[in-house]
Amino acid sequence: MGADSNASLSPGDTIGVLGSGQLGRMLAAAAASLGLKTHIYCPEGGPALDVAAASTRAAYDDDDALAAFAKSVKRVTYEFENVPAHTAAYLAARLPVHPNPGALATAQDRLTEKTFINGLGVATAPFARIDNAGDLDAALARLGRPAILKTRRMGYDGKGQVMIRGGDDAGAALAEMRGQPAILEGFVNFRREVSVVAARGVDGAFAAFDINENEHANHILSVTRAPADVSAATADAAVATARKIADALGYVGVIAVEMFVVVDNGVEKLVVNEIAPRVHNSGHWTIDGAETSQFEQHIRAIAGWPLGSPKILGRVEMRNLIGADVLRWRELLAEPGTRVHLYGKREAREGRKMGHVTRVE
Amino acid sequence: MGADSNASLSPGDTIGVLGSGQLGRMLAAAAASLGLKTHIYCPEGGPALDVAAASTRAAYDDDDALAAFAKSVKRVTYEFENVPAHTAAYLAARLPVHPNPGALATAQDRLTEKTFINGLGVATAPFARIDNAGDLDAALARLGRPAILKTRRMGYDGKGQVMIRGGDDAGAALAEMRGQPAILEGFVNFRREVSVVAARGVDGAFAAFDINENEHANHILSVTRAPADVSAATADAAVATARKIADALGYVGVIAVEMFVVVDNGVEKLVVNEIAPRVHNSGHWTIDGAETSQFEQHIRAIAGWPLGSPKILGRVEMRNLIGADVLRWRELLAEPGTRVHLYGKREAREGRKMGHVTRVE
Repeated sequence: MGADSNASLSPGDTIGVLGSGQLGRMLAAAAASLGLKTHIYCPEGGPALDVAAASTRAAYDDDDALAAFAKSVKRVTYEFENVPAHTAAYLAARLPVHPNPGALATAQDRLTEKTFINGLGVATAPFARIDNAGDLDAALARLGRPAILKTRRMGYDGKGQVMIRGGDDAGAALAEMRGQPAILEGFVNFRREVSVVAARGVDGAFAAFDINENEHANHILSVTRAPADVSAATADAAVATARKIADALGYVGVIAVEMFVVVDNGVEKLVVNEIAPRVHNSGHWTIDGAETSQFEQHIRAIAGWPLGSPKILGRVEMRNLIGADVLRWRELLAEPGTRVHLYGKREAREGRKMGHVTRVE
Repeated sequence: MGADSNASLSPGDTIGVLGSGQLGRMLAAAAASLGLKTHIYCPEGGPALDVAAASTRAAYDDDDALAAFAKSVKRVTYEFENVPAHTAAYLAARLPVHPNPGALATAQDRLTEKTFINGLGVATAPFARIDNAGDLDAALARLGRPAILKTRRMGYDGKGQVMIRGGDDAGAALAEMRGQPAILEGFVNFRREVSVVAARGVDGAFAAFDINENEHANHILSVTRAPADVSAATADAAVATARKIADALGYVGVIAVEMFVVVDNGVEKLVVNEIAPRVHNSGHWTIDGAETSQFEQHIRAIAGWPLGSPKILGRVEMRNLIGADVLRWRELLAEPGTRVHLYGKREAREGRKMGHVTRVE
């Protein structure tokens, strides 16, 4: 890595982004609004390519393509957490990669992630490593039922997980893991799901958006409202927890920390569910509802620029347009005050995130 | 033109944009946020290319390139008013061009424009056609001094115009026109410069943003404030005038109408200065300061979609970053509440629009 490779960027510089989905698309648009160019690296096409100054279509293990990519950009970031470790390491040896590969690796493996979080003195669901049927029997005996068996890696939007209730066949659940390393998580009887979307700068500066409250449908985020309906003490504790995690990871960029709010004897307590080492669907409301969007904030952070004001502009509600929801686009465009964001994906497949709408009151 | 060529667009469709400057760039970003692609047509590179899905670099009189461009897009629009008449006509014979070539032609020639506006019963500065020294002498005798001699075509940001004050040599002023057809405009002793930025839809729907007040420096827009400090009656009259002009032009898209506010015996009167048949610098505040930006509004209008809410979100101030102003970018990024927009241009040449900043209070 060159001596000046960590210097802050200047307008006109190019940021490399791994991944070509809607998050990369919104990152590219935010970078452009700050005078920066974007170069998208992806194995296949995707909606980010429509707004990027340059693109490379190559496999994530194509070292020649990665080397050329590294030479053409001044920073690398990514829009999804399943970036292969080799890709991140190969690039990080050549130029700054934000968030750093260690943070990425921590978030990629549910076992590593929860162990790391507990190590900070922060609560998670109780969990156990599951490599075989014996592990699962012992863990079910300890954690009780219901419990959730998940692959340690590559899960998102409910993929790679199965609930084990009283009477369910544990062996059948384990078979669904298809031999992949797994983790059993004890069931958390939560009142709300919330997330903190925040940014940490190269200099350690930290700025959190207002804590969000999230509703899921079929394991996919459906609605986010900000600010969340929690006590000020809980909101403060959630932000402090996110900062503790980001600091411990030496994190640069936007991070999302999903948490459960559990009410115990009338008192709200937080249980961390998972970390997303990237901009996050539950932060999309910031495009219309905060002084700085999460996408611009991420770009500012990785560029080594001052973080923007995360101030919320009102009460905000963001609804995802999943699959056929997007067919209502014309009606949504006609609703005064509804801000419509469409991702430019061709097919409105079931479960696919096609866009979102935001209202600020 | 095919039977369905005027049907409204669908997400995923491509809009063609003539011109590759910052207005094209912001149009492309707005189109992307609505799921539409952009194809930029320009003779040379420019900042719009960094956020467009496709581009054609060819001369505006290259019919083969224009024919291919027309086949690859479903609508054509433009980001500057000096699009050659041939280009607009060639494309309009093949697919919808918005705003229509007639509106473009009217706005391209100061004589045609002022004649058209007066024909609607709307006041402009007094003016006279100047083809030779005799015309100029007669016009100066009628309109008095000071007066402003301008080329009829191709002027912007004060280029191609010269003030003739008492004692100035009219012949020297005429020589500055370099033989181009010109117009003499009587001096208007105005209190404020304002503009109405508004959109008219394919269906005739009309939506105006709050009227802006503009300050120029060296003939280049420096600061826009919205709403303008004028009476409600003046604001209403300004919007009604813009609508009358847009209706008469059969206009589709965003139009900007610049006006002077003259105070006569304590009463505010409006004098139209000029029409810009496109998104306009004095509407940049809408990106951060209105429920719908002028760029999104233009895209909605030309796509045949419902216009968005033009509601203003507070008191808004937009400042242009001209030339070296942009070198303060880091300091501006650190100001809480200042929204920074940089256009990605390489050289901060004197008089060049490099970006803008907006504050919403």
